[in-house]
Amino acid sequence: MHQQSDSERSNELEHVFYPRSVAVLGASTEEQKVGSRWMMAFLSDRFQGEVYGVNPGGGEVFGRKLYPNLTSIPGPVDLVVACIPRAQVLEALDDCAAKGIKAIQFFTAGFKETGDQGWAEVEQEMVRRARRGRFRIIGPNCFGVYCPEHGVPYGPWIPSGKVGRIGYISQSGGHAGKMLEIGLTRGISFSKVVSMGNGSDLGSADYLDYLAADAKTEIIGMYLEGPPDSRRLFESLRAVSPNKPVVVWKGGNTEAGAKAIASHTGALAASGSVWSAALGQAGAIEVRGLDELADTLLLLQNVGRLDKSNLGIVCGLIDGGGGEAVLTGDACAWLGLNVPNFTEKTSRALLDLLGQVGSVLCNPVDISQRWGDPRVLEQTMELITADPNIDLLLVYQNADILARFLPPDIVDDLNSVIISFALRREKPVVVVLPPGSVETRRLEIESRLAQEGICVYHSVDRAARAIYNVRRYCAMQRARSVVG
Amino acid sequence: MHQQSDSERSNELEHVFYPRSVAVLGASTEEQKVGSRWMMAFLSDRFQGEVYGVNPGGGEVFGRKLYPNLTSIPGPVDLVVACIPRAQVLEALDDCAAKGIKAIQFFTAGFKETGDQGWAEVEQEMVRRARRGRFRIIGPNCFGVYCPEHGVPYGPWIPSGKVGRIGYISQSGGHAGKMLEIGLTRGISFSKVVSMGNGSDLGSADYLDYLAADAKTEIIGMYLEGPPDSRRLFESLRAVSPNKPVVVWKGGNTEAGAKAIASHTGALAASGSVWSAALGQAGAIEVRGLDELADTLLLLQNVGRLDKSNLGIVCGLIDGGGGEAVLTGDACAWLGLNVPNFTEKTSRALLDLLGQVGSVLCNPVDISQRWGDPRVLEQTMELITADPNIDLLLVYQNADILARFLPPDIVDDLNSVIISFALRREKPVVVVLPPGSVETRRLEIESRLAQEGICVYHSVDRAARAIYNVRRYCAMQRARSVVG
Repeated sequence: MHQQSDSERSNELEHVFYPRSVAVLGASTEEQKVGSRWMMAFLSDRFQGEVYGVNPGGGEVFGRKLYPNLTSIPGPVDLVVACIPRAQVLEALDDCAAKGIKAIQFFTAGFKETGDQGWAEVEQEMVRRARRGRFRIIGPNCFGVYCPEHGVPYGPWIPSGKVGRIGYISQSGGHAGKMLEIGLTRGISFSKVVSMGNGSDLGSADYLDYLAADAKTEIIGMYLEGPPDSRRLFESLRAVSPNKPVVVWKGGNTEAGAKAIASHTGALAASGSVWSAALGQAGAIEVRGLDELADTLLLLQNVGRLDKSNLGIVCGLIDGGGGEAVLTGDACAWLGLNVPNFTEKTSRALLDLLGQVGSVLCNPVDISQRWGDPRVLEQTMELITADPNIDLLLVYQNADILARFLPPDIVDDLNSVIISFALRREKPVVVVLPPGSVETRRLEIESRLAQEGICVYHSVDRAARAIYNVRRYCAMQRARSVVG
Repeated sequence: MHQQSDSERSNELEHVFYPRSVAVLGASTEEQKVGSRWMMAFLSDRFQGEVYGVNPGGGEVFGRKLYPNLTSIPGPVDLVVACIPRAQVLEALDDCAAKGIKAIQFFTAGFKETGDQGWAEVEQEMVRRARRGRFRIIGPNCFGVYCPEHGVPYGPWIPSGKVGRIGYISQSGGHAGKMLEIGLTRGISFSKVVSMGNGSDLGSADYLDYLAADAKTEIIGMYLEGPPDSRRLFESLRAVSPNKPVVVWKGGNTEAGAKAIASHTGALAASGSVWSAALGQAGAIEVRGLDELADTLLLLQNVGRLDKSNLGIVCGLIDGGGGEAVLTGDACAWLGLNVPNFTEKTSRALLDLLGQVGSVLCNPVDISQRWGDPRVLEQTMELITADPNIDLLLVYQNADILARFLPPDIVDDLNSVIISFALRREKPVVVVLPPGSVETRRLEIESRLAQEGICVYHSVDRAARAIYNVRRYCAMQRARSVVG
């Protein structure tokens, strides 16, 4: 294997995420074919470079000429997107070498993951030919790269959206797409995403090293099924995690999951406990599913590090606050999150504000006795923000009961209060907004809060788990820096 | 204490859930006051009996006379709803005795739960006066009863909806309301609900015994904070659970939760492990939150008992099925649910149907290679339904990727296939439909499936937990019946 320096590697990946031009192998005169759709995705996105379609049959699509092969394209090509039958990949790679491309990503699947020895060998030969041609392979069996800053869409699937600070590496193209879809609603934005597929050439550690050095990436998420370069990955994780938090979901830690993995990316899943231990030692934040991954990335994006996490909880925005106080208190305490007593001063002020009857005046505090008054919410949040025992505010909001008892403008006013405290950035504010009977209205509220950069969770459990994950990461990194 | 037979008790509660007439103490000429709203809730519901408003000041509301007191009402009154200041409750109870009512429910709060000895004694005196007057108290500090069959709304909050087969007892009025709101979207319907508040007279065991004997109730849910009659409750639980599954969420099993409980219903929360052990011995299904309670009740309602639960999982309705197969496999296996291999025969038929490349052909099965074809989904479900290794089908559906690649009518066709298999009732079908970027569309799909009586879950974790809970209950009851 050709030995490369770190900077050589980084330069190569720069071309992957910021290609100056793109060619799609397998575009065709049929607009609905995946190659044509992929080509259109680039053409209709913010991508500024040249976009070429390649098909041996020639012809036109979207009013653009289809070139019979790569070498007949007049200008230089940085990135090739391949949506061609697997029987054609080796020949295509020779064309790539002749054209002098930088990288090729293969949507084409059917190699190692089929379990067929012959096709596994083709996958190895693909890597050899790429090495010889001095270009890199992304995949095969993947959606490849997404870079909204550069107008690179997520395959034919999702147009490039808001530019964020989260880099995301996924061994499943589906999970990467789903994360982007979730992000659209919840306000999670990405700097770069890569669906790495089988990772036969560029592997998880290559992408992680790139994101570690990338100034546009501050937080990293990963979905892994058991990448072939796991030893190097743990070294890279250890190096990056003090500087940038890395949240890792390792799939296939059960027999049923591992069985699926073998057919999916052809990876051999090591045992779950081995992975957990190694991730912990490397300083990564381990999560157990897509929702927890999204929840944790969202908190890191909007709130950042949490050196302390004593929670002040406000509930009962209109009624039902007693049960909500129990629920929120339990859910936080189950994870060992501290929901401390307020100071004497705060408690006395809350008593003056809310009165005693029918209210839960400890922490969680139930303000329902004052029946949906935005001024009372504001004063309560003011008192809790000023309380030295509290580091972080959690507001529990039931959209359906609010909708039944209050006019929409008052509900908007309540949310304006929450937003104003979040924007003050004195103490972080997270919101729990559970599903119920007024889903359209609830989504409006969620969307407004998300646009203002506020973390919204569907349940206290999920909010608490994200807070726990981030706090644990910070404590671990602090302990490490002390130990040296 | 007056000793009653079981049938006497049941008769009393019959008047509570099926009152022939209702009087609201604290209705007023102001339409927005809670008492007036409660009165209007009865008037605008399907309730067939007389509805009277009572206010010492007299006057009219909604074109109806307000009576100065209970005794001035011309006809008989079964159920009184009290929304009056706590200082007036004892006098009101004497009126109730004079009027010969059957039961009174107190929205009025501020008794034992305040921690004030004087008001705790008033609560005890209320019970003494009710015993003397030979009527019963629901609450205080509660929303009282809901009975859709009889047109009894959930307080001024939620009109009576579809009549279901689930009875629900809640020590939090807020959680009972939230459960009803969740049920509206997810298709969970109730026979009776009671928000029992402090439970100073009628307690959790009284309601449970009533629901146990109630022919309209087949499944029971409970939210408890630590009812005063817990010893009797466990006896009742043990008696009912072989016949009707009882799903119990015990709040306040942490210090933070228990602290909130003291202020909420004034209950003393016993330790969580003691409760868990006692619930297990009594044969109840213990859950750890409102979502899990709803998820489990939904499965019991739509699917019923599960003596076996070998899962057949279908994913990748259009693309992304590889990662989905890993995710669903893992989530089920984490809870010890079996995702067995298909028979040789099924496997071969799936290979013929789907082809090998790019598909995960084991269980979970990924049908994405055939790109959103409803016929392929139908044939796949047919094969899995016929497989003797499989007891239960789980279909994983990502609404956002479907919406991006398929026209709406094809997505509808895919769901029609799912519905047709669910309606055949050969093997139960549950659907996982996770949130993403097309929430309005996703809710349409969820609503359609829910109306057809299909269980829809937001995550595989939640579906798997519900299946686990029901299967565990059935295994436990079977073991008991064998032991005798």
